[in-house]
Amino acid sequence: MKELETRLKKIKLIVTDVDGVLTDGSFYIGDNIEMKRFHSSDGLAFVLLRLLDIPVAVISGRFSTATLSRTRALKIPDDMIFQDSYIKIDAYNKLKDRFNLEDEEIAYIGDDYIDTPLLEICGVAFAPANAIPEVKALCHHTCEAKGGSGAFREMVDRILHGQGRMEEALEKLHGLY
Amino acid sequence: MKELETRLKKIKLIVTDVDGVLTDGSFYIGDNIEMKRFHSSDGLAFVLLRLLDIPVAVISGRFSTATLSRTRALKIPDDMIFQDSYIKIDAYNKLKDRFNLEDEEIAYIGDDYIDTPLLEICGVAFAPANAIPEVKALCHHTCEAKGGSGAFREMVDRILHGQGRMEEALEKLHGLY
Amino acid sequence: MKELETRLKKIKLIVTDVDGVLTDGSFYIGDNIEMKRFHSSDGLAFVLLRLLDIPVAVISGRFSTATLSRTRALKIPDDMIFQDSYIKIDAYNKLKDRFNLEDEEIAYIGDDYIDTPLLEICGVAFAPANAIPEVKALCHHTCEAKGGSGAFREMVDRILHGQGRMEEALEKLHGLY
Amino acid sequence: MKELETRLKKIKLIVTDVDGVLTDGSFYIGDNIEMKRFHSSDGLAFVLLRLLDIPVAVISGRFSTATLSRTRALKIPDDMIFQDSYIKIDAYNKLKDRFNLEDEEIAYIGDDYIDTPLLEICGVAFAPANAIPEVKALCHHTCEAKGGSGAFREMVDRILHGQGRMEEALEKLHGLY
Repeated sequence: MKELETRLKKIKLIVTDVDGVLTDGSFYIGDNIEMKRFHSSDGLAFVLLRLLDIPVAVISGRFSTATLSRTRALKIPDDMIFQDSYIKIDAYNKLKDRFNLEDEEIAYIGDDYIDTPLLEICGVAFAPANAIPEVKALCHHTCEAKGGSGAFREMVDRILHGQGRMEEALEKLHGLY
Repeated sequence: MKELETRLKKIKLIVTDVDGVLTDGSFYIGDNIEMKRFHSSDGLAFVLLRLLDIPVAVISGRFSTATLSRTRALKIPDDMIFQDSYIKIDAYNKLKDRFNLEDEEIAYIGDDYIDTPLLEICGVAFAPANAIPEVKALCHHTCEAKGGSGAFREMVDRILHGQGRMEEALEKLHGLY
Repeated sequence: MKELETRLKKIKLIVTDVDGVLTDGSFYIGDNIEMKRFHSSDGLAFVLLRLLDIPVAVISGRFSTATLSRTRALKIPDDMIFQDSYIKIDAYNKLKDRFNLEDEEIAYIGDDYIDTPLLEICGVAFAPANAIPEVKALCHHTCEAKGGSGAFREMVDRILHGQGRMEEALEKLHGLY
Repeated sequence: MKELETRLKKIKLIVTDVDGVLTDGSFYIGDNIEMKRFHSSDGLAFVLLRLLDIPVAVISGRFSTATLSRTRALKIPDDMIFQDSYIKIDAYNKLKDRFNLEDEEIAYIGDDYIDTPLLEICGVAFAPANAIPEVKALCHHTCEAKGGSGAFREMVDRILHGQGRMEEALEKLHGLY
């Protein structure tokens, strides 16, 4: 626990998977349409991070315009969105270079086999409650919440509390700053 | 309990959050489309309020055409819908002025940090079962139902029973009036 | 129980509510779009009824094109669909006249206040597991399944078993007839 | 158990139902639109099978463009998709002939009455957790996961582990091959 607290303090960049983390893994498919179900609870976490100028990136194995619609609504710059590669380590390394970071300064949350290479090396590895056992075994913290029901929010809460910045975030949210 | 009953009797305006209250917090996002999941159980509560001429307003932090489509189907006038502001107190004060009400005459239901300023001052503060602990701690009553599964209906049932008007509402619903 | 069995044998027409029975009460709303979530398990029940020439009607308080899309896909004739009236007894009486039936020959399933007038008079009154307590108190049988997750199927299974026609239905389904 | 292991080793073709297996049985219906909810966890199972060149076919009782959109996104050839027939044995026999297989070389997963003829003859019969009791009674293995929440993935995991090919699949997934 103490070790987790030490790790949380170093985080400067938060990276997240999409399917199974920002969603419950479902997609809704029809004729020429695909939708994903995102959650307002996570949405507020993205707002808090933006108010604190903490950067966030998204790495997804599968390309989806639904993901892009969501990240744009959350005002995440397009160059922080990486999609359509099962080899996620490439995107991770680009982010590391761009922000000139060490592994220990990056938090990552993912739920399935394609996430294991990142979870093994990042500073704090989170798993949503619905992650496969092989992923949970690798992570520093498994969330109580499932993907699409607040797992990302739970990670952000942990990081902001761990860095002593939650109060600052809420004051900014309430326009008191 | 007795105190809650006293508070319920004074309510003249009902105000509700959207995401996490009228919905479970999810939104369904695709290419140029956003949908929200609302519930018929809450729908009947809006019908009962209309039959009794009890006004309802909606205050949401995030703008969404889905919300507007829903409130129009429920025949709530557009000027009772406030969206796109994390500072909800402004909309609340406008409503208070317009209806010439005291705080104790307004009921509010919300689930997350952006709702706390209203929950602290309104006459009866409700939380859906999925609200964050910080919100539940502020509320006079936490619903058994979650948002999007009847939390709003539960609040309205409480208020109508508390004001002794449920029977009148049902008689009007069944066309007996 | 014995009484329920006696009642089931007399049923010649099955009538169902939509929201909260064929669905879990949710609707998905966006800009100029409304969807409802129906279930394949209920779909098979409609197929079995059609194979046995047992008529089915739908009475819904609220008009929705989603309902009509679903009933047409299920090959239910449009004149068996009644929507947009909270006073459901009118549609019920039209059906009774058209098929020249007694109340005891009609089964109805509904979940909320607007269904109580029909549940009080029909031959067998069913409630899905999610019905309000006031509805369950009126019904001859409360399903284990919730609306949108097989409650209608459970009612049809009960009726076909009660009438000794399930085997015939399955043989027709498997093309053995 | 030992018998199941023996059966798994012989599987050369995997066949799956759609509604209630790749989905939870729900469909989302509106005016001229139908969507189904599929799961990313199953999606990865289809990727692993493709990496190992193990063929997959889909047999659904009801035609749906949503199913076709999904199978195309999963890169399953259209001639492996059979829809719109309650008599599934015809499609099954076509596949058996095309691949020159014995029944014992085919695994099938289904959840309802229309699946029983296939489950009775195939090499390994799987049921999702939500299958009807009559289906579970016929199957060699009932999944812990429900349809639309990883039941198909669980079947594929069982088969790949049973055939000793999971490690090979994951190495290919991580680009190590």
